[in-house]
Amino acid sequence: MNIKPLGDRVVIKRVEAEETTKSGIVLPGSAKEQPQLAEVMAVGPGGVIEGKEVVMEVKVGDKVIFSKYAGTEVKFDGVEYTILKQSDILAVVE
Amino acid sequence: MNIKPLGDRVVIKRVEAEETTKSGIVLPGSAKEQPQLAEVMAVGPGGVIEGKEVVMEVKVGDKVIFSKYAGTEVKFDGVEYTILKQSDILAVVE
Amino acid sequence: MNIKPLGDRVVIKRVEAEETTKSGIVLPGSAKEQPQLAEVMAVGPGGVIEGKEVVMEVKVGDKVIFSKYAGTEVKFDGVEYTILKQSDILAVVE
Amino acid sequence: MNIKPLGDRVVIKRVEAEETTKSGIVLPGSAKEQPQLAEVMAVGPGGVIEGKEVVMEVKVGDKVIFSKYAGTEVKFDGVEYTILKQSDILAVVE
Amino acid sequence: MNIKPLGDRVVIKRVEAEETTKSGIVLPGSAKEQPQLAEVMAVGPGGVIEGKEVVMEVKVGDKVIFSKYAGTEVKFDGVEYTILKQSDILAVVE
Amino acid sequence: MNIKPLGDRVVIKRVEAEETTKSGIVLPGSAKEQPQLAEVMAVGPGGVIEGKEVVMEVKVGDKVIFSKYAGTEVKFDGVEYTILKQSDILAVVE
Amino acid sequence: MNIKPLGDRVVIKRVEAEETTKSGIVLPGSAKEQPQLAEVMAVGPGGVIEGKEVVMEVKVGDKVIFSKYAGTEVKFDGVEYTILKQSDILAVVE
Repeated sequence: MNIKPLGDRVVIKRVEAEETTKSGIVLPGSAKEQPQLAEVMAVGPGGVIEGKEVVMEVKVGDKVIFSKYAGTEVKFDGVEYTILKQSDILAVVE
Repeated sequence: MNIKPLGDRVVIKRVEAEETTKSGIVLPGSAKEQPQLAEVMAVGPGGVIEGKEVVMEVKVGDKVIFSKYAGTEVKFDGVEYTILKQSDILAVVE
Repeated sequence: MNIKPLGDRVVIKRVEAEETTKSGIVLPGSAKEQPQLAEVMAVGPGGVIEGKEVVMEVKVGDKVIFSKYAGTEVKFDGVEYTILKQSDILAVVE
Repeated sequence: MNIKPLGDRVVIKRVEAEETTKSGIVLPGSAKEQPQLAEVMAVGPGGVIEGKEVVMEVKVGDKVIFSKYAGTEVKFDGVEYTILKQSDILAVVE
Repeated sequence: MNIKPLGDRVVIKRVEAEETTKSGIVLPGSAKEQPQLAEVMAVGPGGVIEGKEVVMEVKVGDKVIFSKYAGTEVKFDGVEYTILKQSDILAVVE
Repeated sequence: MNIKPLGDRVVIKRVEAEETTKSGIVLPGSAKEQPQLAEVMAVGPGGVIEGKEVVMEVKVGDKVIFSKYAGTEVKFDGVEYTILKQSDILAVVE
Repeated sequence: MNIKPLGDRVVIKRVEAEETTKSGIVLPGSAKEQPQLAEVMAVGPGGVIEGKEVVMEVKVGDKVIFSKYAGTEVKFDGVEYTILKQSDILAVVE
């Protein structure tokens, strides 16, 4: 994939519910702010963002939990991605 | 559990009302911002979060009081957890 | 009491109206943001809170005036407490 | 009076309209944010408040103008006071 | 006049429409945020205000343009003044 | 013109639609936040504004694009000007 | 093009849907905050913006993804551009 996020942004690809079940995680579909499982596809360089040093903690391939309404969705070569700030990623699942 | 929270986030598991009573704490069910008792399951590394140094003060196993609407709920292996920032934890109960 | 507040938080126990009158203070019951008299039960360690040094100025046993809607109420061993930030305490009464 | 305000807070006692007229000041009763004349009764120690150094500029006995909706009213020994931050005091009248 | 503004506040006295015309300035009466011409009557000492150094740039006697809804109006010895922060003054007219 | 803007403020004079067309720029009249072409008439000294160093980048005579709702309009010697902060100027047109 | 953006602003020209398809990117037309593909036409100098150092990471000719509602649209020589802050650019597409 050739989307290079700027600053502290991260490109993620949502892991569908079927996969979610396989990995043992069930994410409720009715919660108001619905958590989401996704895979990290691209990571911005970090650095000084709005005057604050941001070190990127996630890397390509990480499975992460994020909030549904964070970020912006973009479709690329027929696949949907989400571009969001690293601070909108809640946790890495291993 | 293999959820690794990022930054100053903490994964907690709510302690049910029955347990709550056993430990001598009764948390009212009708308060508008309902306090909650929970056990800490995983703690992020802390560090510089949005330009501010955060030292993690809670540890796995701590019983904590937090506000009901803080954080994001996620179900994992059939168990519900909440991921929230340490600053949304009000107190440790011993 | 074994509630240990985090950071710059303080646990207080409201002094009832009857006691209030005895100490010579009358707090109006109809004001929109109703002031409150309380006794300090536990004090967090202070330190660097959201990047700012906070020195705790109140101590256990202090009688304090605080705003009614500040903080979170929690019942413990049948007694109601309020957990709030020290900055929501207006004054110490001596 | 034994109310000791915390931080950059100040305890003031409103000067009634009659007194106001005597001192030559007339404060309109219909303005939306009604200015007020008051006397300073107690002054907090100042210091570092939310990470910012605050030097107290008013002293006990000062006559000050403040905005009506600033601060919290509290009745003490039958007298009404207002506790507000020094930054809500607009001017000292001499 | 003996009103001493605190911090970065300034006391101004509005210049009436008649005077405004004489000095060659016409300020529209229907604009939503109506600009105003005024004379500076008293200037606070400036200094560190909410953690930021403020140098007072206006002086007593300056004619200034300010926004109508900035500041607080106060009547003193029968004359109406406005107390506002220097940052609410847009320009000095010479 | 003898309006001296304070701090990081700039006085601009709108360039009318006719002139706009001549210079090759067409600014849409129906956009919700309508961009505007203007000429810079006076520039404040800049310096430390609310604790932040501001260097003035525009100079008298510059043609600039700004947002319609930024700043305050003032009529002076029969001519309408706008006083706005330099940060509300989007670009210089050459 | 002779529009010189100030500070951390960037002038971009939207790439039409047809072109978007050619480059393999499909941007949904119904999303609430609709992402957009654009080409960078001019880049501000960066520097200290509102007290924070901003290094410009995009350059003229870059294809970028941005949020539809960011920035201000301006028509110049019959062509529509958008002027926005670099922080409103989500990613560079290569």
